[in-house]
Amino acid sequence: MSYIDGIAASNGIAIAKAYQLVTPDLAFEKKPIDNPNEEIARLDKALATSKQELEKIKAHAKQEIGDEHAEIFSAHLLVLSDPELINPIKDKITSENVMAEAALEETANMFIEMFQNMDNEYMRERAADIKDVTKRVMAHLLGVTFPDPALIDEEVIVIAHDLTPSDTAQLNRQFVKGFATDIGGRTSHSAIMARSLEIPAVVGSKEITNLVSHDDMVIVDGLEGKVIVNPSTDELAVYKEKQANFAQQKEEWAKLKDEPTATADGEQVELVANIGTPEDITGVLANGGEGVGLYRTEFLYMGKSELPTEEEQYDAYKAVLEQVGDKPVVVRTLDVGGDKELSYLDLPKELNPFLGFRAIRFCLENESVFRTQLRALLRASVHGNLKIMFPMIATLEEFRQAKAVLLDEKENLTGEGVDVSDDIEVGIMVEIPSTAVIAKQFAKEVDFFSIGTNDLIQYTMAADRMNERVSYLYQPYHPAILNLVNNVIEAAHGEDKWVGMCGEMAGDPIAIPILLSLGLDEFSMSATSILPARTQIHKLSKEKLSSYKDKLLSMGTAEEVVEFVREKTE
Amino acid sequence: MSYIDGIAASNGIAIAKAYQLVTPDLAFEKKPIDNPNEEIARLDKALATSKQELEKIKAHAKQEIGDEHAEIFSAHLLVLSDPELINPIKDKITSENVMAEAALEETANMFIEMFQNMDNEYMRERAADIKDVTKRVMAHLLGVTFPDPALIDEEVIVIAHDLTPSDTAQLNRQFVKGFATDIGGRTSHSAIMARSLEIPAVVGSKEITNLVSHDDMVIVDGLEGKVIVNPSTDELAVYKEKQANFAQQKEEWAKLKDEPTATADGEQVELVANIGTPEDITGVLANGGEGVGLYRTEFLYMGKSELPTEEEQYDAYKAVLEQVGDKPVVVRTLDVGGDKELSYLDLPKELNPFLGFRAIRFCLENESVFRTQLRALLRASVHGNLKIMFPMIATLEEFRQAKAVLLDEKENLTGEGVDVSDDIEVGIMVEIPSTAVIAKQFAKEVDFFSIGTNDLIQYTMAADRMNERVSYLYQPYHPAILNLVNNVIEAAHGEDKWVGMCGEMAGDPIAIPILLSLGLDEFSMSATSILPARTQIHKLSKEKLSSYKDKLLSMGTAEEVVEFVREKTE
Repeated sequence: MSYIDGIAASNGIAIAKAYQLVTPDLAFEKKPIDNPNEEIARLDKALATSKQELEKIKAHAKQEIGDEHAEIFSAHLLVLSDPELINPIKDKITSENVMAEAALEETANMFIEMFQNMDNEYMRERAADIKDVTKRVMAHLLGVTFPDPALIDEEVIVIAHDLTPSDTAQLNRQFVKGFATDIGGRTSHSAIMARSLEIPAVVGSKEITNLVSHDDMVIVDGLEGKVIVNPSTDELAVYKEKQANFAQQKEEWAKLKDEPTATADGEQVELVANIGTPEDITGVLANGGEGVGLYRTEFLYMGKSELPTEEEQYDAYKAVLEQVGDKPVVVRTLDVGGDKELSYLDLPKELNPFLGFRAIRFCLENESVFRTQLRALLRASVHGNLKIMFPMIATLEEFRQAKAVLLDEKENLTGEGVDVSDDIEVGIMVEIPSTAVIAKQFAKEVDFFSIGTNDLIQYTMAADRMNERVSYLYQPYHPAILNLVNNVIEAAHGEDKWVGMCGEMAGDPIAIPILLSLGLDEFSMSATSILPARTQIHKLSKEKLSSYKDKLLSMGTAEEVVEFVREKTE
Repeated sequence: MSYIDGIAASNGIAIAKAYQLVTPDLAFEKKPIDNPNEEIARLDKALATSKQELEKIKAHAKQEIGDEHAEIFSAHLLVLSDPELINPIKDKITSENVMAEAALEETANMFIEMFQNMDNEYMRERAADIKDVTKRVMAHLLGVTFPDPALIDEEVIVIAHDLTPSDTAQLNRQFVKGFATDIGGRTSHSAIMARSLEIPAVVGSKEITNLVSHDDMVIVDGLEGKVIVNPSTDELAVYKEKQANFAQQKEEWAKLKDEPTATADGEQVELVANIGTPEDITGVLANGGEGVGLYRTEFLYMGKSELPTEEEQYDAYKAVLEQVGDKPVVVRTLDVGGDKELSYLDLPKELNPFLGFRAIRFCLENESVFRTQLRALLRASVHGNLKIMFPMIATLEEFRQAKAVLLDEKENLTGEGVDVSDDIEVGIMVEIPSTAVIAKQFAKEVDFFSIGTNDLIQYTMAADRMNERVSYLYQPYHPAILNLVNNVIEAAHGEDKWVGMCGEMAGDPIAIPILLSLGLDEFSMSATSILPARTQIHKLSKEKLSSYKDKLLSMGTAEEVVEFVREKTE
């Protein structure tokens, strides 16, 4: 039995066998060969097994996540049958008398390099496909297991170095009971995803992939940020009880599902949810969400081989709006770049992607991509209570330009005789310090603000939240963050506009009293945080909290802030 | 004749032949060989030529930049004579019957990979040495020229993709009359270096390395940010006149060399210089600098194979302090990381280095490196008017911790009987938004602030200033920047502390009236900007400028700010 510490990323206790989602070591030693025909036979076998697997994965993906996401596997299957790739490998085996592994590697690398250097998006995609497929074939040649998250068919806890959005898209959600990763923090994609899937997760446990073996029994304690490997019977009993207690607490919380969100002294605020796909709405409604505060539309663009069409987008937006009814749905326009890459868009490699060409910066330079999304949103607007917000706004000019494109598309649609709602609020994410600082200037022009603390904190502190060496500087309670948040709220209220927050901070039990004190109107969080937050807010006094505001804003350090909040809310 | 546009990075006009500082293409085609002995002879010849060159470069470097900087070339020479590297290459030629190029590349790569993967700093350095040396030998094998900036012995204009600090350390300053690069902006190292060397430069001209050939006649117009390739006789005459006019204007400026810096209505401010080495002081004094506002100590750590000793540092600090006399010298403690790498420190590769483990973050975790620098500074303090400042401070805790280490070393030195000045002011760089936002809290504890706008702007705008795709967001006049600067000044003055600015903005003719309006006390800039700035300030009215302050702070966009300033100061 061993304990591994990490960061509690998603509530709950999960107990299951470990599933190691790790790319195996594909290095091999070059050895002379006796018989080229044997090598060709080995290659053919590896190709056939890979084909079978990919067929299975493709079928699975089709069923689980839809036709378009399965397309990528069709592309992979094509590569496996492409004589222009396979024949040169076989030729190499016979003519150079080398192992199948070496022939595969050298030939594949030649094609990959050739395609990558072409000034053609389609060919570069092919390079990526060949790379992916070659790995699988190589694994079969070497007799090592290549993990396939889509093929998981028993209850497991996924152990991985990190989970990227595309990994998660392939996970078979039915059987993944929890996960634990080496890297990441509370705001990394893996953590956000775990909360959205409502499964316990521990991230940033540094060496978990080295310390846990495939099929080890594992407990993920997402409440305390611990992983227990091969627990004793006693330990297992303790955690089964903890699991039951958590289930019971969830039932308690559930009693507030249909209650309004108000402080003990009757001040109402809005508790809404962050979502990534229309499927997330079920969880939002089950958890008593009063709407959607952040719909991250980039998931529509991910795990695919091309841009989503206007129609696909319209369907998704409509589905969300209809399910949520007359409650508000705040949709964030495309936020790609940074750590979110889309292979088919050919974004430039950047030295500092978090300070780079992303979100609205990309959209304003790729107007056709932007216009397609705006048209889909505008068309969907008649199906509910839509609000649109632009991400990564740093200057008033950007907002004005983005809004002008929106109004232009609205006019186009109206001209085409398409119905568009007439009261769509248009706001911005406040996630860049410049915008928080001159919120007063912005408040005159936007309909609302939504503070994106994940980015706002990392820029304000100049610390990459994904970089472990400086993650201690990711300080939501730093007085500078509180002052910026306050500045935004005061500016908005001065113009009778509302302010939400859609960063992780909005659902944090220490932050909630602070944000109430500063006067935040709308709190958007993972669906599973809504009921605990409502429970907490019911016990707090808005009046008392407001009286702490000046004190909080004048503090020197995050530590002082936390200590003060703990003392005053205990 | 052709014109190439770029960014004006350093004033003046330079006219000379182009020197292409570009690593040549070292790719080769594998061909079967006839005679291994011939290949070995080719290799021996390439080794011998490389040795001769390196001896020459070493001698040059010794003379130009001192013994320690020449050490790196001794290490390179050792590699060239190392039988453990050379014999395996020759063996490979004979046993595998391959070209010298292939044998060299494969053997070198094997050693490089092996050494790089060792958990030992010294061995990793050797990997870097082998890499460097192999390139040179390969160039000789292929018969292509390998550029050696240290060997330049006629007047040239250096044309390069970019100039790194280590490139610049090798330049023969006597003959480099100007330079032009593909990438970079006004605040990139190459630009800062050009201003410090007082040579005209144009950066960010995108394709200059493709458009200019070695030995082309080139005009660098550092006033307008233009490069003219193979000018006509007429054009040449025009630029010779422009060059003469600029020389004359410099003479005009020079008249103010010993004048105090004051506005037309008698408000005094301080005009000081940014420097990188003790040698820069000559230029500072010649340009009428009233001290040093930023001594970038990282140059002491660069272009070397190990950390500078306490003694070496002491000598440099003492040299600066003594030359500057009783005028202030603000020394910034080590700022490595970000885009400034030190090979021997083995800093981690980061996804977003600008948001990473740098400057004070590095120093507080590598206290022995930090303490050595602080001891050297404290010992040097008796030789002049020293002020110490810490870079990249984001939290009060960091400042307190850094100051505690400083006081601890002061106590140690006093205990050892070493004299240390008793009135060293200790301040911080304000270059992270969090610190600008809670400047009021910091003002109670620091002796002064120095606003580092280069970083402050890039963090506040969340835009990497080196990334061309988003460099339009590097907006010094964005109202958010003005508000942050104002917040720092008001906070400092409230506690009777002074505020300087050592980013590029401090010497900018549009920014100067704004900064006077906000009440900045000290302007630190490239030495060559001091006299033009003094000339400009002499003509401005502080009272009138102050009356614009509220208006400036409430503006919406950088464009409005610039328009307003232009209108009011014309």
